[in-house]
Amino acid sequence: MPITPAPRVLGIDPGLLRTGYAVLDRDSRCEARLVEAGVIRLAPRDPLERRLATLAEALEALIETHQPPLLVCEDLYAHYAHPRTAILMGHARGVILVTAARRGLAVLSVGATRVKKTLTGSGHASKAQIQRAIAGTLRLSRIPEPSDVADAIAVGLCGLRMSLAVPPAPAPRPRRTARIAAALRRTAR
Amino acid sequence: MPITPAPRVLGIDPGLLRTGYAVLDRDSRCEARLVEAGVIRLAPRDPLERRLATLAEALEALIETHQPPLLVCEDLYAHYAHPRTAILMGHARGVILVTAARRGLAVLSVGATRVKKTLTGSGHASKAQIQRAIAGTLRLSRIPEPSDVADAIAVGLCGLRMSLAVPPAPAPRPRRTARIAAALRRTAR
Repeated sequence: MPITPAPRVLGIDPGLLRTGYAVLDRDSRCEARLVEAGVIRLAPRDPLERRLATLAEALEALIETHQPPLLVCEDLYAHYAHPRTAILMGHARGVILVTAARRGLAVLSVGATRVKKTLTGSGHASKAQIQRAIAGTLRLSRIPEPSDVADAIAVGLCGLRMSLAVPPAPAPRPRRTARIAAALRRTAR
Repeated sequence: MPITPAPRVLGIDPGLLRTGYAVLDRDSRCEARLVEAGVIRLAPRDPLERRLATLAEALEALIETHQPPLLVCEDLYAHYAHPRTAILMGHARGVILVTAARRGLAVLSVGATRVKKTLTGSGHASKAQIQRAIAGTLRLSRIPEPSDVADAIAVGLCGLRMSLAVPPAPAPRPRRTARIAAALRRTAR
């Protein structure tokens, strides 16, 4: 089966205050190029549902502008010091994944170790090593800041390389009404 | 300030395989009435992002049909045996909250202890006590099944009572474009 590598990816480092993002292209010589990167900032005082809505809206605007076929999102650690933090981070990641899926993007989840190994050859690389690998690969004159941006670029670069080995086309979706009817099972009325 | 009690609530018991839901009304004598309840079932073999999209679509269909002004969602426990479960549950809850917020519903989060105390007077009530309280309050001839449905009804009933004391109107939203522009901070191009 011929494999079509994703020509563009949207890398995401999820968070409830700052979500890093990076749009990366692969050029005709299969070299990565940074199109845009930045941070989606959420207002800490907003209620959770409002923060999540802002995150979804900002992500939709990025997808609309850059039309990436693939979103690559960092996996969450299962060893946060506070379980509540892990749960809240899950909220943000759920919103990111659902936004991508509903806009027709393929989704790839990558763990931090995988990102480190893909970029530096070692799953235990330090933050500084990752940043140097990013700057070198993309020929950047300085390390991207804040760290959420560097992390999103790392995730995106990893996804760009992994997409060479991933069949890009998602399975065709069943018709929307049929899917909803199947999902909703009424048991009391 | 006059308080307008929510005339209708959508109660949700979130999950990644089964999400219970219940639509409840308050009649003119302030008594609760069950309009509809059921389960949104997600296919365990679907990738996570597809499951989340199905959850969002099913929830949107319910909101479209019943037009509840208030969604009440059970809080997640911070003491799951497996942190990974807590994170995954967070994904589902994030999708539920963002769907409600983007459809203009007010959102109320209630913890399990609060639900138990509101329905039975004791924060340590057993599942059977909760189920009897539900059946009694709503004059149901049998206990609703499966337990996800009973849990969603309990959450909805709790929200219906709490909404008597909650100002219903959410703060007006800033214009969408301004919000996105504020959220997206580009730091590399």
